Amino acid sequence: MTRLLLLGAGRSAASLIEYLLRHAPTEGWFLTVADANPAHLAPVLAAHSQYARAVPFDAADAGALEARVAEADVVISMLPAALHPAVARACLRHGRHLATASYVGPEIQALHAEAAAAGLVFLMECGLDPGLDHMSAVRALADIRARGGRVTSFKSYCGGLLAPAAEADNPWKYKFTWNPRNVVLAGQGGPARYLDRGHLRFIPYQHLFARAEPVAVPGHGDFEGYANRDSLGYRGPYGLADVPTVLRGTLRRPGYCAAWQALVSLGLTDDSTRLGNPETMSWAALVDAFLPVAKVPGLPLPLRVAAYLGLAPEGEEMGRLNWLGLFSDQHPVGHADATPAQLLERRLADKWQLGPHDCDLVVMQHVFEYERAGQAHRRTSSLVVTGADATRTAMAQTVGLPLGMAVRRLARGEVPQRGVVIPVVPELYAPILDELAADYGIAFQEEEGPC
Amino acid sequence: MTRLLLLGAGRSAASLIEYLLRHAPTEGWFLTVADANPAHLAPVLAAHSQYARAVPFDAADAGALEARVAEADVVISMLPAALHPAVARACLRHGRHLATASYVGPEIQALHAEAAAAGLVFLMECGLDPGLDHMSAVRALADIRARGGRVTSFKSYCGGLLAPAAEADNPWKYKFTWNPRNVVLAGQGGPARYLDRGHLRFIPYQHLFARAEPVAVPGHGDFEGYANRDSLGYRGPYGLADVPTVLRGTLRRPGYCAAWQALVSLGLTDDSTRLGNPETMSWAALVDAFLPVAKVPGLPLPLRVAAYLGLAPEGEEMGRLNWLGLFSDQHPVGHADATPAQLLERRLADKWQLGPHDCDLVVMQHVFEYERAGQAHRRTSSLVVTGADATRTAMAQTVGLPLGMAVRRLARGEVPQRGVVIPVVPELYAPILDELAADYGIAFQEEEGPC
Repeated sequence: MTRLLLLGAGRSAASLIEYLLRHAPTEGWFLTVADANPAHLAPVLAAHSQYARAVPFDAADAGALEARVAEADVVISMLPAALHPAVARACLRHGRHLATASYVGPEIQALHAEAAAAGLVFLMECGLDPGLDHMSAVRALADIRARGGRVTSFKSYCGGLLAPAAEADNPWKYKFTWNPRNVVLAGQGGPARYLDRGHLRFIPYQHLFARAEPVAVPGHGDFEGYANRDSLGYRGPYGLADVPTVLRGTLRRPGYCAAWQALVSLGLTDDSTRLGNPETMSWAALVDAFLPVAKVPGLPLPLRVAAYLGLAPEGEEMGRLNWLGLFSDQHPVGHADATPAQLLERRLADKWQLGPHDCDLVVMQHVFEYERAGQAHRRTSSLVVTGADATRTAMAQTVGLPLGMAVRRLARGEVPQRGVVIPVVPELYAPILDELAADYGIAFQEEEGPC
Repeated sequence: MTRLLLLGAGRSAASLIEYLLRHAPTEGWFLTVADANPAHLAPVLAAHSQYARAVPFDAADAGALEARVAEADVVISMLPAALHPAVARACLRHGRHLATASYVGPEIQALHAEAAAAGLVFLMECGLDPGLDHMSAVRALADIRARGGRVTSFKSYCGGLLAPAAEADNPWKYKFTWNPRNVVLAGQGGPARYLDRGHLRFIPYQHLFARAEPVAVPGHGDFEGYANRDSLGYRGPYGLADVPTVLRGTLRRPGYCAAWQALVSLGLTDDSTRLGNPETMSWAALVDAFLPVAKVPGLPLPLRVAAYLGLAPEGEEMGRLNWLGLFSDQHPVGHADATPAQLLERRLADKWQLGPHDCDLVVMQHVFEYERAGQAHRRTSSLVVTGADATRTAMAQTVGLPLGMAVRRLARGEVPQRGVVIPVVPELYAPILDELAADYGIAFQEEEGPC
């Protein structure tokens, strides 16, 4: 009997829990799901009471964390990433393995040697992005190299978007399918860094969305990608140290980035300063407050915004801003003394809410350029997953299933590495990518051709 | 005998030390100057050994701080502002008064009740800006009100600049006369907030320098002012709660702000992310890395920068950037894996270094608009101080003398307030402004007229 502990079971954990329950009987697992609100799990777990239970759990209660970790063999955390250092330290104290879908932060990285010495595996970045991106990119790179190719360019994009039917009523073609706050703050915290033909490239936040580039995914139409914060950090783990072009980016539907750039330029994504605004301030008044004082009185707000930002008054960007209600006297900002980002998130939560019948879409694409026998080649690996319903979203599947599969290999003792591990090793990526394709139809489409 | 302790005696403390020495015999003071490098003080203090001494002091040594504070009656700190909470807590433990020229941060403010209960005065913001700005503005406001005026607008500007002769060899008309890092990071950390005719106004950092406005100081020519981070915080202390226009700003010579805006737009003032750059990277390569990849090869870097920023290739802004050497292959950035702001500060330190014969200039101007008997009036209070030499700079005088004078009133028991106090009370501003004018010729010129 292997005791699995899952910490945190929000809606995005549905596919993970389903996966763990499916394999619990044959793998000899007993699953404890520890969640702030375990009641919603009762119907899910009812048919599985021999090998699963839900327990109440307060992530802020250090004693509860300690007790739960002590009685597990493998700890899986879907808690917010900021809580993972505390979870990892508890795992160290009790000698437990850990698996998460979150980035390796410096605090986790600092535990590597200690975890390795204790014979533990802290399996990180095992979801979608980070996770599936690593697995699929590293497998394709290994394949290209095995066939004598020398990689000259690697570009990789991922986006959590909408199935076409759900896009129809929204000119941004975007709704929240994951943490809204992260969407509002995306790209902040310093220039994006990437490598272009051997040259470092930096894009400051204030231009990031203006410099998005078109990305086409065959069969799924057009997208645009903006650069992620740090593409350079992937050179080591992916073995790209001598590859002159390395770029990672985030996908949106065409038009999103130019309109988001307008929000950035207005100052509405800033999260550093509370404005001292009243709760009843209208959105029109808020937007007006970010403009220079009008020289000519009486000019309508949208015309002044368009002139200030250099946008066509009747253009698509202005249309998207208007659709959000930003020029309206009728929408109060609804939150006193808040940061612009907090107010924007609140407005977007209304307008970008996923409807009960909306399905999401996860899109990932890697573009490899390489030389073989003096010839330039190009390979495109694309993954498109559509959500099945409001619970089995594409996001829940592509985050939860790889994580579940990684836990399965870990619990079986099939992960030989120790310490902090990310799935760039064949012992993880090969079986997980194969299982995703065989059992769930989650497979990358590969296209190969001359450059 | 009153024992004064001065913590920190960098070059900007010269006028303060001179002032304290001048008054020590008559006021019955004994002055201990505690500095990391006390040797440079020996010649200054030699003639005053009966009532002054210098001692070595390491601000990072908590025990040394404790011991020095214990043996003083009044502690004056010219240490970096970040150290003031520790100094203030030591003053609390030993029951000592404190005086500084730094802003009241939240940590100092939190000590107010405790300091007041202990009968102590923590006299903050007693330099130039903050300091003289408070004193002069509040006195003028009191005067306007005493004569029946109702203030409708308050705008206040201050700048640490150059005497005209020192501007001549520098198209920015700017050199470092205070902390270079603060100049590079000026305006960062959230939108500037001010009040315009009853409306809140916000200016995000990415537009702050583009939205500078002209300011004229009679007899001293033209300047431009950009908005300071938070003008609204002054409404309470200045009694401006019902005044519809409140703006504080920083002065530069015309042209500075547009060129600085170009540096901001390029991304060169960012301090949040280290670039991973080599030390030997040239400035041309660094600037190039912030531009989009050139579509047309071979176009010179300055032309690409001008096109990207929408500047005239032969215009003044480009001239100022070029003068800094930013397009040169010959200047290495000189610092590996640094933030853009660190690299820019390094470059500016070379180009904006104050020469041995350069004199600085401090300029402050308040513009009050008010109504009296149905008539609109306008009063301008302007202060211009030119540095005497490299030691008695205008900055050292206008920071150090008000602080010394505030200490004098404190030591005499003429400050009735207790707890955290800033010089908006007549017991401080009246005698200090009078003494500055009478003994040092540091006086505001008042102009009054219809609006």
